[in-house]
Amino acid sequence: MRRSPATTRHSKRPAQPAEGLDIELCKGKGGPLFRQLHEQIVDRIAAGELVPGMRLPPVRSLARQLDINPMTVAKAYKDLAEAGFVESRAGGGTHVRLLNGSTAKRGTNGQEEPLQQPLLSERLYELSHAPGVIAFTANFPAVDSSCVEELNVCIRTAMSRDTSSLLYYAPPTGQFELRQRIGDYIAEQGIAASPDNLMVTSGAQQAIDLIVRCLVPPGASAVIERPAYYGVINSLRAVQARILEVPIEDDGMDVDKLEACLARHRPRLIYTNPTFQNPTGISTSEKKRRAILALARKYGVAILEDDHNSELRFFGRPIPSIRALAEPDDVVFYVRSFGKVFLPGMRLGYVVVPLPTRRQLLMMKAHADLHTNLIMQDAMAIFFARRNYVGILERMRKVYSARQRRLIAKLMRGMPPGTRIVQPEGGLSLWLTLPEGTEVSGLYFRAVRRGVAFVAGEVFYASRDNPRTLRVSFGSVSDEDLDEGVDRLCSVANDLMRPRMAPSPIFT
Amino acid sequence: MRRSPATTRHSKRPAQPAEGLDIELCKGKGGPLFRQLHEQIVDRIAAGELVPGMRLPPVRSLARQLDINPMTVAKAYKDLAEAGFVESRAGGGTHVRLLNGSTAKRGTNGQEEPLQQPLLSERLYELSHAPGVIAFTANFPAVDSSCVEELNVCIRTAMSRDTSSLLYYAPPTGQFELRQRIGDYIAEQGIAASPDNLMVTSGAQQAIDLIVRCLVPPGASAVIERPAYYGVINSLRAVQARILEVPIEDDGMDVDKLEACLARHRPRLIYTNPTFQNPTGISTSEKKRRAILALARKYGVAILEDDHNSELRFFGRPIPSIRALAEPDDVVFYVRSFGKVFLPGMRLGYVVVPLPTRRQLLMMKAHADLHTNLIMQDAMAIFFARRNYVGILERMRKVYSARQRRLIAKLMRGMPPGTRIVQPEGGLSLWLTLPEGTEVSGLYFRAVRRGVAFVAGEVFYASRDNPRTLRVSFGSVSDEDLDEGVDRLCSVANDLMRPRMAPSPIFT
Repeated sequence: MRRSPATTRHSKRPAQPAEGLDIELCKGKGGPLFRQLHEQIVDRIAAGELVPGMRLPPVRSLARQLDINPMTVAKAYKDLAEAGFVESRAGGGTHVRLLNGSTAKRGTNGQEEPLQQPLLSERLYELSHAPGVIAFTANFPAVDSSCVEELNVCIRTAMSRDTSSLLYYAPPTGQFELRQRIGDYIAEQGIAASPDNLMVTSGAQQAIDLIVRCLVPPGASAVIERPAYYGVINSLRAVQARILEVPIEDDGMDVDKLEACLARHRPRLIYTNPTFQNPTGISTSEKKRRAILALARKYGVAILEDDHNSELRFFGRPIPSIRALAEPDDVVFYVRSFGKVFLPGMRLGYVVVPLPTRRQLLMMKAHADLHTNLIMQDAMAIFFARRNYVGILERMRKVYSARQRRLIAKLMRGMPPGTRIVQPEGGLSLWLTLPEGTEVSGLYFRAVRRGVAFVAGEVFYASRDNPRTLRVSFGSVSDEDLDEGVDRLCSVANDLMRPRMAPSPIFT
Repeated sequence: MRRSPATTRHSKRPAQPAEGLDIELCKGKGGPLFRQLHEQIVDRIAAGELVPGMRLPPVRSLARQLDINPMTVAKAYKDLAEAGFVESRAGGGTHVRLLNGSTAKRGTNGQEEPLQQPLLSERLYELSHAPGVIAFTANFPAVDSSCVEELNVCIRTAMSRDTSSLLYYAPPTGQFELRQRIGDYIAEQGIAASPDNLMVTSGAQQAIDLIVRCLVPPGASAVIERPAYYGVINSLRAVQARILEVPIEDDGMDVDKLEACLARHRPRLIYTNPTFQNPTGISTSEKKRRAILALARKYGVAILEDDHNSELRFFGRPIPSIRALAEPDDVVFYVRSFGKVFLPGMRLGYVVVPLPTRRQLLMMKAHADLHTNLIMQDAMAIFFARRNYVGILERMRKVYSARQRRLIAKLMRGMPPGTRIVQPEGGLSLWLTLPEGTEVSGLYFRAVRRGVAFVAGEVFYASRDNPRTLRVSFGSVSDEDLDEGVDRLCSVANDLMRPRMAPSPIFT
């Protein structure tokens, strides 16, 4: 699943790869070599091939491989250090610095403070492609080869139909047939939806962003769970919303705190992710779902229900979605995507829209990108019509259920005593809370240097904190990598628990 | 190019079409028939098959075709009228009302006034699909069959490569190879761009929207040309910007007014569309491009240069883009797409990003939709690599240049004296200004009823006005339809010029 360094990714470019670094210099044109080298390393950092904490190749070895003077490499490294991209470490070697230490720190106007969060999607991509790193970062499934074959068939079928209709501009709503198929698919889960109240988006993230833009004017407030999916935090920050975090308990949001919050701040929106919550994996109980719905009604606030992967339930009884529990005129936006279950990169999602807000949301979609690519929509309509996803889902549940159990067992054995691990009834992530006194950001960098990565909990909190939490996702880690990766993670975590000491003597 | 009523579009659904109306009732289930009929007509209005001003089939004829009681149809029509979807006309018959008279008028909170503009993309789609209407609404080319064949090959090639890499999440930047190809493509037009400062977006509209969201905080001001592309007006409205309109003259923006505006209001952004401006077709002279750039430097304001279809030049010498005239560190965002030239529905665009703002724009892209579909990006990279677009472009220039001349000649002959028609050096639209005293909104509805459509000028102005302007686009009108369509348009326009009178007696 993961790739060896610098092969697949840029295989289309003729390259002289340099020890895992895909660098290619043009002698005689393209400007001074040290400058070219500088630029390409910056590019690799931006593209995520060089991860913060990773060591650059030693000067002499890179010079040898590129067949250039070592002084040229040294000059490039020096300039990179001055520009803040890399740093020399006491232990020797030149290491990549944190991305937000880069030159692009400030925008053209003064008010972007809320936008200066690390670009997590880049960070995650970096880690999943970093050579030698086992990345527990993918909260989405590995692409299944039969799913790829299925998609291939669907795209070929779409392209063999009347293609020209797929190549004109279309209304923002989304393709009619796809909306019909989605309606049928979610009807099986008790959700009443027809092409009229369904809208296709470029992934669930877009649906969330559009709903936030429609419902939350600048400076207004919105409720999220604490912790919550960073995508909604970012969208709320982008509209300068006041973010109200209500702690999540083992059965969902603390509804007393939620009510206090609604009464006091009159927010515009409650965002909730009630099934296999991202990041905690917690499922909100039916009782609390009903309570949240009742509170939303009482205080006249809209609900954004993000149902990102309820299909991936491994055990326990399915709980009806809030949308399924609601009356037709309750203002519940119900968001799903194909990404977290079938095909992550498709960028197709959908939202069941309360009719009175339909037009406003469509307008926002039209401003945002007019409409979503129709070829992909047509292909997905065919994908649903063929119904082969039923078998694919069944197989996925088996594979990931077993992997979840294996991961939990290994972590229980290996992590420091006092580590709390929540076992969810489904989904592709585990949520770990380390014992008191652990510094997780320290853990993150140590872990990456030791060849294992996860998502540090801090990105899931809107208000700054130094949480001892981490999300360990197993969507695209093979069983072999899983064992090795957990060993690395546990060993780093255990090191952090002990007071610093010299390496234990080998013979005692 | 245009389709016959209710055939192609829903050909995938089993249907009992009713005189151009794609209605299908389920007897015995699905609720009362009048209710089903009501809902389906609302759906057809929303989907754009029924255009404001169009007449519904007579009660008896629809009843006959659907094999139901005429009372049922009458009841459905009555309910539709009460709900504001249709109205009875003095001249007889039931007609579809303006869309924004529909039930979805108000959002869930009180501040959407700026969002209550008519949803133009729906309106345009409606018109281009309305049976019997010749629509001069498409400011983009008809999909060329060789272009479709080319795209088919590209998608098949993309799908035959390592597909799994196209199906994972990716960074917001866009696919590396596509950015390289785009860089090569625009380098031919004097624009220095590399994968580092290029970003792929879901169409030019998304690029515009993201730049606006990054640069224009709520309540800040931004400059546009007057008139300007409605897409930028909508994006600015969505961030509650103060929109400053600088009149466009025959050689581009009035630069004295622009300077006064910059000095007084200190806006964050100048949006300009300097080549074959949408809607006027005007090209900003090189002198004025330099002047705008100098002013932007002087007042420290960013430029958003929308270069939507400079490839479609029919005569005259190409003028360098502002981006090509600028220094590397001038803050000029240069936006283009594939839609206005090759394949409208692909939803792929790109932007040359000033490096200091790159990271901020990427973050906004990540919030907006994570990244653009990779299969389409890969297909477009192949499309560029194959270079068959060179021949396609050449053929398009010939076809559209001839069509532009034909359209202008016909309009000059037929439109009322005093009509002003600007002849642009390229692009797919003409901009008409009718003589003093004409009421263009009246023209619009009369025209649709007589089977011809265009875009009324009002959508291109941010401040309310009753302009006598209209955009007549010929991207997807065949030569035969063109002649007939212009005859209809001229006859309606001439009627509006004359004081109302009884029909002339036949014999005098």
